[in-house]
Amino acid sequence: MTEFITKLRVYIEDTDFGGVVYHANYLRWIERARTELLRASGFEQKVLMDQDLLFMIRGLDIRYRASAKLDDEVIIKTAISELRSASMVFSQKVFLAGSGNSVGALLCEANVQVASVSVASRKVIAVPKMITAALVPYQL
Amino acid sequence: MTEFITKLRVYIEDTDFGGVVYHANYLRWIERARTELLRASGFEQKVLMDQDLLFMIRGLDIRYRASAKLDDEVIIKTAISELRSASMVFSQKVFLAGSGNSVGALLCEANVQVASVSVASRKVIAVPKMITAALVPYQL
Amino acid sequence: MTEFITKLRVYIEDTDFGGVVYHANYLRWIERARTELLRASGFEQKVLMDQDLLFMIRGLDIRYRASAKLDDEVIIKTAISELRSASMVFSQKVFLAGSGNSVGALLCEANVQVASVSVASRKVIAVPKMITAALVPYQL
Amino acid sequence: MTEFITKLRVYIEDTDFGGVVYHANYLRWIERARTELLRASGFEQKVLMDQDLLFMIRGLDIRYRASAKLDDEVIIKTAISELRSASMVFSQKVFLAGSGNSVGALLCEANVQVASVSVASRKVIAVPKMITAALVPYQL
Repeated sequence: MTEFITKLRVYIEDTDFGGVVYHANYLRWIERARTELLRASGFEQKVLMDQDLLFMIRGLDIRYRASAKLDDEVIIKTAISELRSASMVFSQKVFLAGSGNSVGALLCEANVQVASVSVASRKVIAVPKMITAALVPYQL
Repeated sequence: MTEFITKLRVYIEDTDFGGVVYHANYLRWIERARTELLRASGFEQKVLMDQDLLFMIRGLDIRYRASAKLDDEVIIKTAISELRSASMVFSQKVFLAGSGNSVGALLCEANVQVASVSVASRKVIAVPKMITAALVPYQL
Repeated sequence: MTEFITKLRVYIEDTDFGGVVYHANYLRWIERARTELLRASGFEQKVLMDQDLLFMIRGLDIRYRASAKLDDEVIIKTAISELRSASMVFSQKVFLAGSGNSVGALLCEANVQVASVSVASRKVIAVPKMITAALVPYQL
Repeated sequence: MTEFITKLRVYIEDTDFGGVVYHANYLRWIERARTELLRASGFEQKVLMDQDLLFMIRGLDIRYRASAKLDDEVIIKTAISELRSASMVFSQKVFLAGSGNSVGALLCEANVQVASVSVASRKVIAVPKMITAALVPYQL
């Protein structure tokens, strides 16, 4: 099993008056990571939409452990904890970056349940087998 | 028990390329509702911070049921499902607005765990009794 | 001439690590004000889009004069400084709220040039006369 | 003269219901670019703040030329058109990425006026000579 690694930097837009990253912005970050995992697996969401496939977020839980600050570099580790015919659960952890690809403190961890739906009908449809197959290496 | 009611409108800034509200923006909305509940109870967060009190979000879970669209009016109902000495859990539901104060479809529901911390030390501290007392009417 | 008045509150989501409102968020606020001016005039953007009309922002300039802080209430005054067949310029000022409808310090002022385009072709089209007529009262 | 190059990707968070990037988000992007230019020159804003220096945005103008879409890669070119003792103007252009470091269509161009202020007093102060010297190579 491989965790997919994404790195990003904390900018002013990410922070709030408390001097740390605004809690909702971690959801933007982990979505970027899922998008990059899909892209690295050969799938772009704009192209999938043209093929009538949309990944909709059904629900998520997130636990905040520590706070990132302006100019921090963070590392997101993304794995898949459930891979079903029409849905999947991403398990994602955000860390402060350490040296190289090592990680520092855990900032937050989230589980994100995503369903595969038709753009046209908004009904649940099967995840194409090519996508499922490409995601297997990231399965926990 | 009274649920605290907040109304808001969907603007372009809230939407994404799917034509509906971006999932992370519901977190911004329900935070506005918690802020207004506190304000209606006599407490402003900027004032509390000057008194060394900060409400930090420890974790949350959210389930998405339906999607709001541009120009929709939504109603947020906020209650408190746990009210402890140094933390509380807000139970919040976002609905499409119906006529008057009635509600339409449920859009999402969330539980948000908030801890009371010292701004200076970032350590957990007791919620002042005046605040707890003011929040009791909203307790489930 | 009447300036269109919008009021809003500063929430945590609006602030940045400097303790004041993040500069780009004023653009979100003044767009809400333009949206409400259109709505008060009888036009909703989602409905207009279904009729193949989209108001696209061509350009804007903004000058920041002072900073809004968390929990501040602000008042936006919106007028129209140019009203042409296929474009218009909104002149908008954001103030701290004073007592009642009076205003406090000027926070920023912006000019926003908007063009009327076809959703389908993305080409410039005439603003429908009904809309232009409804906006005349706000013309400087 | 060298223009400073920043690359970034369009994510769902950047888009709006029109299917393209929300106009205010270009301001977030070009701020990231200015931040990276400063970092590449040896200066981090968090460190500068601890030394009582804050770069405040005084005003900006932006012209939108074309729209970026989900999954697009964009290139930001940043130069400095004015470099004074207590202020500077950044001249920034956002392009669709071409192949390699080449650029495609111009998406928008902005001029951003930034002043050097004291964090403590919020008064204008001189930009430290070390910073000015480091920025000279990017001067138009």
